[in-house]
Amino acid sequence: MTTKELVEQIRKKQSFLCIGLDTNLDKIPSHLLDGPDPIFAFNKAIIEATQHLAVAYKPNVAFYEAYGLEGWQALQKTIEYLNKNYPEIYTIADAKRGDIGNTSARYAKTFFSDLSFDSVTVAPYMGEDSVVPFLEFENKHTILLALTSNRGAFDFQTQIVNGSALYKKVIQTSQTWKNHRNLMYVVGATKAEYFKEIREIAPNNFLLVPGIGAQGGNLQEVCKYGLNENVGLLINSSRSIIYASAEANFADAAAKKAGELQQQMASILEKHEF
Amino acid sequence: MTTKELVEQIRKKQSFLCIGLDTNLDKIPSHLLDGPDPIFAFNKAIIEATQHLAVAYKPNVAFYEAYGLEGWQALQKTIEYLNKNYPEIYTIADAKRGDIGNTSARYAKTFFSDLSFDSVTVAPYMGEDSVVPFLEFENKHTILLALTSNRGAFDFQTQIVNGSALYKKVIQTSQTWKNHRNLMYVVGATKAEYFKEIREIAPNNFLLVPGIGAQGGNLQEVCKYGLNENVGLLINSSRSIIYASAEANFADAAAKKAGELQQQMASILEKHEF
Repeated sequence: MTTKELVEQIRKKQSFLCIGLDTNLDKIPSHLLDGPDPIFAFNKAIIEATQHLAVAYKPNVAFYEAYGLEGWQALQKTIEYLNKNYPEIYTIADAKRGDIGNTSARYAKTFFSDLSFDSVTVAPYMGEDSVVPFLEFENKHTILLALTSNRGAFDFQTQIVNGSALYKKVIQTSQTWKNHRNLMYVVGATKAEYFKEIREIAPNNFLLVPGIGAQGGNLQEVCKYGLNENVGLLINSSRSIIYASAEANFADAAAKKAGELQQQMASILEKHEF
Repeated sequence: MTTKELVEQIRKKQSFLCIGLDTNLDKIPSHLLDGPDPIFAFNKAIIEATQHLAVAYKPNVAFYEAYGLEGWQALQKTIEYLNKNYPEIYTIADAKRGDIGNTSARYAKTFFSDLSFDSVTVAPYMGEDSVVPFLEFENKHTILLALTSNRGAFDFQTQIVNGSALYKKVIQTSQTWKNHRNLMYVVGATKAEYFKEIREIAPNNFLLVPGIGAQGGNLQEVCKYGLNENVGLLINSSRSIIYASAEANFADAAAKKAGELQQQMASILEKHEF
């Protein structure tokens, strides 16, 4: 999917919500566990209930790998279901991969060609040749970890390298790489003021923002500094939406939570000048 | 497996060779492609021919994920085969994972509990809480990326943070984490003099060293600076061993290459004072 198509969908739905499909058999409603494929059944119900409110879905691959072959199959079924029924929806494989060049090329093939995701998250530690194999795919995005939303982000990402924080060095350096227009960045919502400086060095790239909801980030503040003329933000929420209820009404409860966020987003977009 | 058991195996075999099982259907002998599971058939033949020469095997997960369900199944069969037939051999899932705490815990469960690997490689960018879920497993090692052997290592890993390179900061900081005795580090063999400084900050940890062989590192030099009283090195070679021949004699050719390295290692261990 092109950036343009993503932006069109955002304007149409008045939403820049991404829903994280971190599906955990210990947390889904127990009645689903009796069916043949509870992971996919859960994802399908969540997607059906929220697809008009969200522009993107982001399965975190860790949750699928944890169930071995069955999990991998559920991931395949989920992305196939999305691509078949909602081809306008943007898909993110939250895999946080990264390896030497020829090995990264294997991961890129897996997530872009075989599974047909629109994007994949990638860790920057191994540098340019570990990321470029992902960037080479046309009309696919590579979402580089910059500033994550967890406590450990302060161990290395915010450390000062040549006068500026490592995460800013990651953004600046990656802006010089081949096909850098295919880059997005993960920027956690824990400190909204960081977005101001990030927009100075990456004015045009989309930012994928975890940490709204369960992790406590503030949507208004993030948008104040993070929005650009293409909207430029995908706000991810996982647990606070998909586990809003563990009862039979879980999909409705998820839709209610997603709807609240979408309403806030619509109101922000209305006031924002593009 | 405990570090002590690994060291015992090294002394017994007079080898600290790790063989990387980066199995690629485009590179394995074509006669294997007619069988029911060519990836596993290749791995099994390589293991059978080299198990007396190597102390560890390291499948890179990217190569298995690239073949979807079949690949994942081949990975399962390979680790089961190793654990059943050669329980004394050390196993490494080269996965380079890392995510926020509860998600890293899923990856740790996958590779340590479900697949029963002895160790897994982990990327440090997301900091302490992304690594600790791996470190919590008893008698398992977490192999943190420090200085990798690719060109991109110079983009961020060697950048100066508070007066020393980021990769040294990663090693120093991680030495303060809970269960840090379960840590090993990936240190590429591209510059042997780096090992001297690394041994000053991590005298006791094992180092997993890629880049000997296909990537051009020098075994003698690395050992001069890297060996410690527990040997403390695992030297990985992948392509130069497993793809030594693409003919019917591929396993013998792999054994010959592995044997050459093992002979060099035996001679180094003989001269080294422990």
